[in-house]
Order: sequence, then structure tokens, then C-alpha cells
Amino acid sequence: MGLPGWARLGPGVVKIIRQKSHLLAVRGGRPVEISAVSARTRDKDRGVNLTSYAWEDDPVVLATRDDVDVFVELMGGSDGPAKAATEAALKAGKDVVTANKAMLAMHGQALAQLAEDNGAVLRFEAAVSGGIPVVKSLTEGLAGNEITRVLGVMNGTCNYILTRMESAGLPYDVVFEEANQLGYLEADPELDVGGIDAGHKLSLLSAVAFGTQVNFAGVELEGIGRIKIEDIRAVADMGYRIKLLGVAQMTGRGLEQRMSPCLVPETSPLGQLPGGTNMVVLEGDQVEQVVLRGPGAGEGPTASAVMGDVMDIARGLRVTTFGQPAATLTEATPAKSATPAPYYLRMALQDKPGALAKVAAVLAASGISIDQMRQYGHADEAAPVLIVTHKTQRAALDEALEAMQTTDVVVGAPVAFRIENL
Amino acid sequence: MGLPGWARLGPGVVKIIRQKSHLLAVRGGRPVEISAVSARTRDKDRGVNLTSYAWEDDPVVLATRDDVDVFVELMGGSDGPAKAATEAALKAGKDVVTANKAMLAMHGQALAQLAEDNGAVLRFEAAVSGGIPVVKSLTEGLAGNEITRVLGVMNGTCNYILTRMESAGLPYDVVFEEANQLGYLEADPELDVGGIDAGHKLSLLSAVAFGTQVNFAGVELEGIGRIKIEDIRAVADMGYRIKLLGVAQMTGRGLEQRMSPCLVPETSPLGQLPGGTNMVVLEGDQVEQVVLRGPGAGEGPTASAVMGDVMDIARGLRVTTFGQPAATLTEATPAKSATPAPYYLRMALQDKPGALAKVAAVLAASGISIDQMRQYGHADEAAPVLIVTHKTQRAALDEALEAMQTTDVVVGAPVAFRIENL
Repeated sequence: MGLPGWARLGPGVVKIIRQKSHLLAVRGGRPVEISAVSARTRDKDRGVNLTSYAWEDDPVVLATRDDVDVFVELMGGSDGPAKAATEAALKAGKDVVTANKAMLAMHGQALAQLAEDNGAVLRFEAAVSGGIPVVKSLTEGLAGNEITRVLGVMNGTCNYILTRMESAGLPYDVVFEEANQLGYLEADPELDVGGIDAGHKLSLLSAVAFGTQVNFAGVELEGIGRIKIEDIRAVADMGYRIKLLGVAQMTGRGLEQRMSPCLVPETSPLGQLPGGTNMVVLEGDQVEQVVLRGPGAGEGPTASAVMGDVMDIARGLRVTTFGQPAATLTEATPAKSATPAPYYLRMALQDKPGALAKVAAVLAASGISIDQMRQYGHADEAAPVLIVTHKTQRAALDEALEAMQTTDVVVGAPVAFRIENL
Repeated sequence: MGLPGWARLGPGVVKIIRQKSHLLAVRGGRPVEISAVSARTRDKDRGVNLTSYAWEDDPVVLATRDDVDVFVELMGGSDGPAKAATEAALKAGKDVVTANKAMLAMHGQALAQLAEDNGAVLRFEAAVSGGIPVVKSLTEGLAGNEITRVLGVMNGTCNYILTRMESAGLPYDVVFEEANQLGYLEADPELDVGGIDAGHKLSLLSAVAFGTQVNFAGVELEGIGRIKIEDIRAVADMGYRIKLLGVAQMTGRGLEQRMSPCLVPETSPLGQLPGGTNMVVLEGDQVEQVVLRGPGAGEGPTASAVMGDVMDIARGLRVTTFGQPAATLTEATPAKSATPAPYYLRMALQDKPGALAKVAAVLAASGISIDQMRQYGHADEAAPVLIVTHKTQRAALDEALEAMQTTDVVVGAPVAFRIENL
């Protein structure tokens, strides 16, 4: 086995292979050993001693060594060395286990095809929801189902930030900085808080669930950066919590994929989800609903997922990357959500007579009726107003939101979060 | 593929294979077809037309037909035709997929060995918690972990009865009869309400989790028949719900396996588990905790699990029954729980002065202190008294319970349920 990339994930895998060599050999039917390693710098202290393994400066060279059967890619990044080494490994007929959601979201189709063309397998359990065996459950456990919907909370950092904002009553910027200090954020934080990382994951689950080519560009993305502590307080008053929720669903109009802040009932399993935990809900025509919950990241959980894939390979279990031959994956037509839902709106209104009436009139003109409305005390000229609508189409809402900005009473752009009464 | 046994599960599997032949062939890389079927009576209406399949009166003959690669055993029963046909299939080198927890709980070790000796696989996802891919998650997804604990609610019928008792305020006997009318109970209801079925499942998960031979006899079993509506009301007052909870844990003293009514916080995921749903919690040294929730029974979910195993076989995925060679499974020494826990006690006390003091003295003599005590109004001579203890060893509690019955104030045998603050 060859291991490049050490930033956060390598040591966990090395520890398992070292400390559990007997257990792994018994379960896998053969020893699992590290042949060689690679990293950006050789002499950094990584908490594990690597001197007993061969060293390669170049991960591409590592990937194609004769004594490597399985290349474990933990470098990250959608292109660059990770992609080059993965391609080199697959071309050389080596199996690849990767935690790299960005690479698969961008190049999953080509890499899956490359693996098949070379009789290799390419597996990615660790790329989606850390330690939860969700790819395996979907690809294998539910293989007798037509999957009807996949949804869940797939980014632990965002869930940590939102949970912490609520529990500590702190604004987004402060908690964001805390998370940064704690090392919870990606080097480019937008990957986390912009919903991109979670969107990558959703696009991979969609491919497995619906037999479609990975289509990350088709994911409607919205991050958590616009969520204010006022939103969190207001929705709590109404019995909701805000989660960065992904939903993928095949419809007659095409594949709906969205990753965006949504309100969920605080008493629901998703609403109860604490801190860095992930939860994925798989719905199939036979199994109804299976819910999986577990740690979304971290050294141990990620290493657990990587080793699950490695052990499959040791045992001779060879599944195609997305559960069926790459050539049979169909192109997915992205579709906007057409399922009506209630929405939570926040806007700032000029403090003048008739302002609320104007907003109500704009909503009514788009056929949207109001379920709840709250206006809070305010110090400045613009008053925060919160509205929960009855069920409406997103298209009608977008029309109304646009129309609001042409009135002379709404200050700035209103914020709209979908309410999912799961 | 050959299918015997139709009671409740056969039609679901047939429907999937008929309606999804294209999907299954794409995913599995080969067509999945039914060659022949068998059942106790041929001409019963089962909601699916079986005339296109060859018919065998004898499941043993079915199991060994040349055109059968996979024998799907849905007959049930630990011995008799199910075991005979399973053995015949394995001896003939046919792979077997079974939903039969009783057979595996009794003969799992021998059958796993027989499968390996004949180059066949024997898989049982449908035997544990219906549609939830828990065996796969544990055997494969978490193969890089040392499993530290497995626990959960594994019998949907018991969970239905307990949930319904609480929501409708009905006594056990009435809800038991309702469940019977609805067809939720096994032909021998004691399998459900006596905790035996759930105990079978726990013993199978233990084997996979800890690499031990299945040891159903080592499961400490207690059913739900002693739970009264008064218990459910009283524990609800204290913020708890009663669940039939299974816990398996490897300790320095041996393998602890218990399946018994326990109090769990009503706000916990286990406490929130509704009706026929199952929840299994898998804890490993790397992954920390993964929770799986889904339907515990039913035609669709069970067929989903059966087809997961069948599709693995179609794809050429061949895992040993319990995740490692049968010969390497160690004998498990059963150990009684030595983890201290608080307990809920219910007893009937003679209505005479000093009765409560005597009970308190007995508990104190065993070193058990009382956290809460409630005495409810009563019509008869004996007054129901409910006690929640502080943490104590089960052995000390058993001693106290025995001593209580030698006093002249406790009427009948006290009831004790463990409190798990999960």
C-alpha cells in the first residue's frame, strides 16, 4: 500500500495499520502493509514514525511502485498532484482509495472510467461524511432499491458553527474565527462555509443513488455566511433550527440537487444533530428510509472509512466506483426544485408607514401567503422583519424577492431559507 | 436463484427481481433471475404469479438444482427444513442468503464453517434489523475498527407495543392483542415479547463485532411482558422511556450480552425511536459512534436487505459470514455486566407502618442508595412504590431484590429495569 498526503489524515491510517496488523490480517485474509509513503516535506514531526517505509518525493512515482497494490490518496485538491498520482496509479492497474471529494466531484466520471479500463477499483467512502459507511450502504446495502431521495447534513464544520452560534449566542463572525483557530476550517474556508465541500459530497451520493454522472455544477449552492444570530434566535422561537441541508432527488424534470441553509424542526433527528456530526438519510422504494449518523470528519473517523475501503480490496471485493459501470451512468439534467415548501424570510424595512403592507402586497402578487410575521425592536432606521410563508414554489418566491427590492421600503437583499418539515 | 418460503418475505423479493431486472443487471453486472421456487403449499394466492418459475415441493431439492447459484432461505425456524436446505445448498457449493436469525443464532458457527469448506458464501443482512445495512456496515465499513460496543433496539414489534402503550395509555395485554390482530407478532409471540428474536440478532452482531463464535445462550434475556402501563407513566414523569435494549460489549472478564427493558432519556435518539423502527449504535475505537436507524421488518425492507446480499453475490463480493474465517472466531466467555448503572424498581408494599423503611434498609445493606422514590395512590392493600437508585452493580441489586422478598412487607417479586443514560 502506498500513502501520500499527510496534512490531517495520514497518521490515522498508519496507526490503524500498525496497531491492528493481526486483526486486519484475520479479517482481510492477508496482511495489510504500508510499502512507501510520500509527503510535501519529509522531516516534519507527524506523530508517527515513518522511517520504516520507503520514501518517495513524487506521489506519481509512489503510485506506480511495483510493491504498491493500493494507492491511498489523502492529498486533497481537485487537480494537481492528487489527480496526477491517482491517474498514474489507475493506469498502472493499482487500486485507489481516496478521501478526495473535490477531485471526484470534478473528475469522477473520467476517473471511474479510467479505473475500469485498467481493471482497477477506485473507492471513496472517506470522501463523504467521514466515518459513516454511507457510500457502501447506498451502493451495496440498498442495491435492490430504486433510490427516491438522499438528504442530509454533510459538513461537520458548518454544523459546528451553527450549533455553537445557537448554544453560545455568538454571531457568525466570532464563531467562524473560533472554528478557524480550532483548525476546523479548510485552508480555503469558503469550501466549508460556502457549502462547496458539502455540495461535492452531495454530487457523489447523487451519482450512486440515481446512476447519473457526477454533476457538481448542477448543485444549487448556498453557504451559511448569510445566517445571522438573529435568524437563529428567531427560528428557535418558532421551533426550528437552521442546518446546511443537502437534498438530491430524481424528478420527471431532471435531477434536483441543492445544498443550502434550511429550517428543520428542532425536535427532528436533523434538528437534534449536534456539533460536527453528520446525518444522511437514504430513501428507497423498498427500504423506505434509513438514517445514518456519525462523525463527519477527524483523523479516526476518516481513517476508519479509508480502511473500510482498503479492507474491501484486501478481501477481493471489487465494486465499480459509482455502483455500476461508468459507461452506463446517464447524463443528469439539472432541475430546479418544484416541490412547494414554506420559506423563512428576513428583510430590513424602512421605518415608515405602510412598509409592511407593501411587502405583504408584493408577496400576495406572487400568490404567496404569510403564515407568521415578526417585527423586532431596532435601533436604526431599518427594522428587521421576519416572515414565514405558507407553501410556495421557489420560482414564485424568487419573483417576489426581486420585486421587493424595487419597492422603496426594503433595505438590501432579503434572505430566504427553505423550511423542510422532515 | 432459488427461493423457498413465502410466509411473509417471498413476494417482496420476487417483486424486486421482476420490476427492477434492468437496474439489477446494470448494478450487478449480470442478470438476476429466479430459477425455481418452493413453498409449503403451491396454490395459495401470494399476490405474485409464480407460474413462470420451476416448482419444487422439497426445498432441499430446490437448493441443489443445477440452475440455482444462490439459495435464498426465507422459511424461518432454527432447524427443520430451513437448516436442512441451507446445509444442502452449502454442501453443493451454492451461496445462501438468509433472513433466518434463529438458525444462525443456533447453528451460525457450523454453517459458516460449512460455507467456507465448500467455497460458498452465507450472508444474513435481512436477519438483523430489517432494511438497515447493519451487518454490512459492521463487517465491511468498520473493518478497520476494534469494535468497543454494539447496542440498540432490534425488535420492531416490542418497540411498537411500548410506543403504543405510552401514546394510547393502554395496558400491555390490550396492545399485545392489537399487535397480534395486526399480524405483527411471530407465530410464537414469545419470540418477540420474550426478547428472543432480538437476542438472536444481538448474538449475531456480537460475533461480527468481536470475532467470537455466536453465543446466544450467553445473552442475558428479559422480555417486555412485565412492563406495566404504570411503569411507562412513571418513567415518563421522570423523563424516560422504556425500550427493549440490547447491549454487547467485550470486557476483560468476557463478552457481555444483554437484551432487556431499559430506561433511556426520552429526548435521546433511542428514546425518540417510534413504533416499529429499529436503531443500532456501533461504537469503534476509530469511528467513535455510528448510528443506524430504519424499518426493522416488513416485506419491502426485508426484501431490500435480502437483495443487498444477492447483489453482492452477483457482483462477486465474497465475504465470510462473520467477517473473518469461521475457524478464527474465538469462543466467548459470557460475562455479567459489571458496569454500575442506576436502576428503576417497582414493587408492591404492604400498607403498614415502617414498610418503606424496611425496603430502604435492605437497599442500604447492599450499599445501594436511593435517588428518587414515588408512592402512588392505591385501592388495594399493597401500594405500588417506585424507586430510582443511584448507580449500583447488578450483583448488589440482585442481592437486595432477593432480600426484599424475605421481608414481610414486599408483595410479590419486585421489577428492576436498568437506566441507560446514552
